[in-house]
Amino acid sequence: MHDRKLKFGMVGGGQGAFIGAVHRIAAALDNEAELVCGSFSSKPENSRATGEELYLSPDRVYDTYEEMIKKESELPEGVRMDFMVIVTPNHLHFAPAKMALEHGFDVMCDKPVTFSTEEAQQLQEVVKSSGREFGLTHTYTGYPMVKQAADMVREGKFGKIRKVVVEYPQGWLSTPLEQTDNKQAGWRSDPSKSGKAGAVGDIGTHAANLAETIVGSHISELAADVSRMVEGRRLDDDANVLIRFANGAKGVLHCSQICAGDENDLNIRVWGEKGGLEWHQHDPNTMVVRWLDQPAQVYRTGNDYMNDRAQVNTRTPFGHPEGYLEAFANLYKNFIRTLRDKAEGKEPVRDFPGIEEGLQGMKFIDAVIDSGENNAAWTKI
Amino acid sequence: MHDRKLKFGMVGGGQGAFIGAVHRIAAALDNEAELVCGSFSSKPENSRATGEELYLSPDRVYDTYEEMIKKESELPEGVRMDFMVIVTPNHLHFAPAKMALEHGFDVMCDKPVTFSTEEAQQLQEVVKSSGREFGLTHTYTGYPMVKQAADMVREGKFGKIRKVVVEYPQGWLSTPLEQTDNKQAGWRSDPSKSGKAGAVGDIGTHAANLAETIVGSHISELAADVSRMVEGRRLDDDANVLIRFANGAKGVLHCSQICAGDENDLNIRVWGEKGGLEWHQHDPNTMVVRWLDQPAQVYRTGNDYMNDRAQVNTRTPFGHPEGYLEAFANLYKNFIRTLRDKAEGKEPVRDFPGIEEGLQGMKFIDAVIDSGENNAAWTKI
Amino acid sequence: MHDRKLKFGMVGGGQGAFIGAVHRIAAALDNEAELVCGSFSSKPENSRATGEELYLSPDRVYDTYEEMIKKESELPEGVRMDFMVIVTPNHLHFAPAKMALEHGFDVMCDKPVTFSTEEAQQLQEVVKSSGREFGLTHTYTGYPMVKQAADMVREGKFGKIRKVVVEYPQGWLSTPLEQTDNKQAGWRSDPSKSGKAGAVGDIGTHAANLAETIVGSHISELAADVSRMVEGRRLDDDANVLIRFANGAKGVLHCSQICAGDENDLNIRVWGEKGGLEWHQHDPNTMVVRWLDQPAQVYRTGNDYMNDRAQVNTRTPFGHPEGYLEAFANLYKNFIRTLRDKAEGKEPVRDFPGIEEGLQGMKFIDAVIDSGENNAAWTKI
Amino acid sequence: MHDRKLKFGMVGGGQGAFIGAVHRIAAALDNEAELVCGSFSSKPENSRATGEELYLSPDRVYDTYEEMIKKESELPEGVRMDFMVIVTPNHLHFAPAKMALEHGFDVMCDKPVTFSTEEAQQLQEVVKSSGREFGLTHTYTGYPMVKQAADMVREGKFGKIRKVVVEYPQGWLSTPLEQTDNKQAGWRSDPSKSGKAGAVGDIGTHAANLAETIVGSHISELAADVSRMVEGRRLDDDANVLIRFANGAKGVLHCSQICAGDENDLNIRVWGEKGGLEWHQHDPNTMVVRWLDQPAQVYRTGNDYMNDRAQVNTRTPFGHPEGYLEAFANLYKNFIRTLRDKAEGKEPVRDFPGIEEGLQGMKFIDAVIDSGENNAAWTKI
Repeated sequence: MHDRKLKFGMVGGGQGAFIGAVHRIAAALDNEAELVCGSFSSKPENSRATGEELYLSPDRVYDTYEEMIKKESELPEGVRMDFMVIVTPNHLHFAPAKMALEHGFDVMCDKPVTFSTEEAQQLQEVVKSSGREFGLTHTYTGYPMVKQAADMVREGKFGKIRKVVVEYPQGWLSTPLEQTDNKQAGWRSDPSKSGKAGAVGDIGTHAANLAETIVGSHISELAADVSRMVEGRRLDDDANVLIRFANGAKGVLHCSQICAGDENDLNIRVWGEKGGLEWHQHDPNTMVVRWLDQPAQVYRTGNDYMNDRAQVNTRTPFGHPEGYLEAFANLYKNFIRTLRDKAEGKEPVRDFPGIEEGLQGMKFIDAVIDSGENNAAWTKI
Repeated sequence: MHDRKLKFGMVGGGQGAFIGAVHRIAAALDNEAELVCGSFSSKPENSRATGEELYLSPDRVYDTYEEMIKKESELPEGVRMDFMVIVTPNHLHFAPAKMALEHGFDVMCDKPVTFSTEEAQQLQEVVKSSGREFGLTHTYTGYPMVKQAADMVREGKFGKIRKVVVEYPQGWLSTPLEQTDNKQAGWRSDPSKSGKAGAVGDIGTHAANLAETIVGSHISELAADVSRMVEGRRLDDDANVLIRFANGAKGVLHCSQICAGDENDLNIRVWGEKGGLEWHQHDPNTMVVRWLDQPAQVYRTGNDYMNDRAQVNTRTPFGHPEGYLEAFANLYKNFIRTLRDKAEGKEPVRDFPGIEEGLQGMKFIDAVIDSGENNAAWTKI
Repeated sequence: MHDRKLKFGMVGGGQGAFIGAVHRIAAALDNEAELVCGSFSSKPENSRATGEELYLSPDRVYDTYEEMIKKESELPEGVRMDFMVIVTPNHLHFAPAKMALEHGFDVMCDKPVTFSTEEAQQLQEVVKSSGREFGLTHTYTGYPMVKQAADMVREGKFGKIRKVVVEYPQGWLSTPLEQTDNKQAGWRSDPSKSGKAGAVGDIGTHAANLAETIVGSHISELAADVSRMVEGRRLDDDANVLIRFANGAKGVLHCSQICAGDENDLNIRVWGEKGGLEWHQHDPNTMVVRWLDQPAQVYRTGNDYMNDRAQVNTRTPFGHPEGYLEAFANLYKNFIRTLRDKAEGKEPVRDFPGIEEGLQGMKFIDAVIDSGENNAAWTKI
Repeated sequence: MHDRKLKFGMVGGGQGAFIGAVHRIAAALDNEAELVCGSFSSKPENSRATGEELYLSPDRVYDTYEEMIKKESELPEGVRMDFMVIVTPNHLHFAPAKMALEHGFDVMCDKPVTFSTEEAQQLQEVVKSSGREFGLTHTYTGYPMVKQAADMVREGKFGKIRKVVVEYPQGWLSTPLEQTDNKQAGWRSDPSKSGKAGAVGDIGTHAANLAETIVGSHISELAADVSRMVEGRRLDDDANVLIRFANGAKGVLHCSQICAGDENDLNIRVWGEKGGLEWHQHDPNTMVVRWLDQPAQVYRTGNDYMNDRAQVNTRTPFGHPEGYLEAFANLYKNFIRTLRDKAEGKEPVRDFPGIEEGLQGMKFIDAVIDSGENNAAWTKI
């Protein structure tokens, strides 16, 4: 039990954005944090309108993140924001993150962590020296079933892991949507905002992070066939990648935004010597576990046989499906729990992705793009 | 855009309860309402501890609902609660609902609406005379896909409806759990708290409401085989029911809490002259639609082909699963929208279940129990 | 190992029929029997054309079943047919079956066994007095997974059985197809050929047989709501039935031929005190088994964990799907094995439905139709 | 209508083999062909015992295929075998195929077509010069739904094809099964019998053939990561492959026999500009078709909306599942139809895989193994 909710501010997430609203719901879902301030857009009128919609006090809605960080840091503890959330396009992650950390604020940031690997490396230094927490919203590892999966692998239930197939087909960029006024498609396919990668950065990093989280080992090298399938597109919209893990497992990662008709089908299968597992994000409360000589089992969230870590990250009883927003909220739940633990002098559990995962994701992007440009040559991460 | 969030209070939902937390998350999910007061338990210390956990001001945590309604009604508008949520066991719905309505508060109430049909009829009168809104949390009709289904039926896409199969198998009461200290099982199987029905009231009413909502017609008569399968149980835990709708459709409703291994599998299939639909609560973002001479179609929430009413009740893009909490939040979203509309002099849409659905549910319970006691004789509702 | 294939003749199954070809494939699938003669149609030219298509010797193609039985019985053993298959409409089962049995031929017959219960009772006497084998093609109990299911129930794996839901929705008679020249629809909806029941006889009997086979107990009483949903139809096309088993289990059986868009969806769920099972004919190699406190299991045919009886009735390794024809062939496999065993003086296993199941099916039809005509009164079988 | 069944002989398929029985069932399923002779094993006593089990005349059971081909060719037409089936391990395909073709017999042969590409090329010459038919049992393209899929792609329903994911995970070689007395595992992992490839030859060729059949274009280059995951195994048991098609599509093929717990999960997804399709061999009567802006559709075999080619290859009405044996039988059905058409002077349709597919498969094996040995370098086929 704590004496007050935590307070947070937001950079980005103004009208027309998608992910900002998701962060706001997720952060507040468990009634442990409340939005108190924001700099929601590079357009002040958008920022103010957003603040009004969100019932913020007008004096806590800022024109720039610099102003927000500066002014908030001058407010007394308990009034000022406790942490700051960054939901801008990729090229606008680094600067506000750095400034917030340096002003003593913990930070939650959307992924990929930065525009470039160099920025990510710098940011890692800033995080370290600041002593603040940095969370990265690789949403999908927030699902309780993913935690169960990772723990079962770690405990050796499947023996040594041999093969991994992780896939992330989407179809929403099957046409040149960025040539319309679609804001999401616009910045994601603009190298000046998204970075060197399109689909690989946007969703390939999620797939890689999911696989590494469950396998419990890093992708150590890869060979990638990277494509721009839609005429005129400036960044990749499809990649097929051979992957090898540090622990000896091999496999395939493919991600695409031109799989016409597919929605958001992040899927993973992992096989070890004794069995394997299969999980689909579109049915996130279910995992099929297979064994060499026994019938497959169907794990379902909310049941007593789920492990503690999964249960802590579940809000409803079995059969009452949880979804994307709850997985997202789990990242915030664990981030906030960590801030509380530190405040209370406890050793924090830190069950959320952070700067290390962010940096690993940037290196993954580099390796995929490099390999793609080098005729799918094996490329180390 | 509105000038402030609405404020609400809660009756019930103290420590050890389940559904109170769900209501709190659901009501606050869209950042349009906030909990400001509560009388969470008949035990004042439980109520106070709950209030503290929820970061309420101690002076807004009350020992009794009577005290809460009285004191809140004396606070100025904008400070006092705007509406009150009732999450107590069934026998404690009527009195607080009546008092709140009579003191000018809108009410959201868990289902079944009251302990008895008589109470429900009285409450209907109170609602009418009060001019306040009364919402009933038949959660499952809050799913956007259920709205889509109901609209497709209403628009005649399937022709005249002929057959309906609605089912609600759960397994959690397969053993005499009420003889342990399980609080949920305890009151649900206690006739003095739950009313004359067990499973029929707890989940049969959900199944009936779902079917009536989608079919767009009331169940007009039924023949029921009602059982207590677990030795020593005081209320029904299983019912198989032949149903006939006012519009001529026929079918089956079965509900059970002794389907060992089943979770919370509310399912419905509806067939008309030209095709039919199938929806499962455990995968709520999907609906299979079948046609006489064409391949079946798979409708999925978040897509552009979904109708407006479904889209308004969806928060995430396709492929980002929403679940039970979001469906629940839709009830609150539409309830709050109605309060806003009335405050602003607009004609409210009222897209949520209310006292009529509540009264119909009580009559359904009466008919099932009566039929069960009369050798499954056809019984009119 | 045996010295020769068995020989069989067929009554019915001429051009335009459906099930005759299924029987011929099924009987010959395991290379243990061959068609040698037939009286395929009441129209001699159809019969002769069918015989020619099937490469039969013209002198073994007969104009009537009477002629066939008589002439074949005069041929020497090893030349004459060993058993006779009946695939005519319902009203033409009894007479050829009786005559064949009385002439010393074993008989395989399509279901329902006869036109009326009286005929079935007579036939039972004939079977007994003849000492011949009589098989009834309740196809669906031929699936290896159904055998596994029945055995797991019998062995008490799920404890005492409490609830059964068996359903058989089809959609092919959603329109008045019998008013076109559709031969299948024609006789099935003609009371002079089909008997007193339409859908109830055609598929309701399959559902009942499946449930009784798996539960290991008879349906002892039922209450039925029987409908003719399509204008002008002369026999029922939909029935919803409350069922009670002799062993105390209760449940629901519904069957329909007006579930527009449904194919042939015979489904069953059975729950006992400790767990339950779920099987769908459209995915016949899979069975989900649920437990009170453990993850559900997915049984799949062809695996080593399947029991002997299932394995004997499986021809392909796991993952190589078997279907309807193989299930049908299992009836013949076991029928033929029984004839072989008797010929060799062994105690036959008789793992196929026979006259008892046939008579029980006729009583089921009587009870459903009677109950339907008596306002769904409970009716004993 | 034809004047007689065709007669066939078999090489291989003695006791202890698996695929021989499958061929025999498949060839005879439609009552258009019958087994008349065989040389079932290199062990004469096994061959004779098999012949006896199959009710063959002892004088038509031969000790060697050479003897069989020679003696049968001396029998008169109508008595001698019309075609010959080869079901031996890979190293024993070429010689009997060549000899049979040269003696005027049509040939059906198991896959991969030969031990080496050189043999396949020679065999192609023999087929051409002989004027006989050569069929190759790439079973999976025999499924009616695969034909529907290929035709929809060819007709441009999905626009230009962009991406293909084809996968074939099996788990049965997760342990060193070849070190037990398992005959199937034994020869498949023995380079002297299987050829240069293990899993890649055994199932990778199926995956490649399926993809090429549906896409309507050849895999033109690939980059492969090929592994022996089980200690001591002499041939590959896992491969992950980047693939590019001649028509510009790109994608992934992975196959494995160490995916513990997987059965025989041949799966394919294909995406074009306007939509895509998904098919799983374990549920072969179903195909999901997705569209850019419309709900996905579920195609099911046996329905009127299926195209002619699919319907010709379907034996049962919708909802009566067909499986592996029926797909296999379709190869024989179309092979036999071709022999009939040629005999009757008609232009044959040849809807079955043949020597071209066989040679392409051998080149695929070469390319995968070469690429694997060259650090996954892009390798042309």
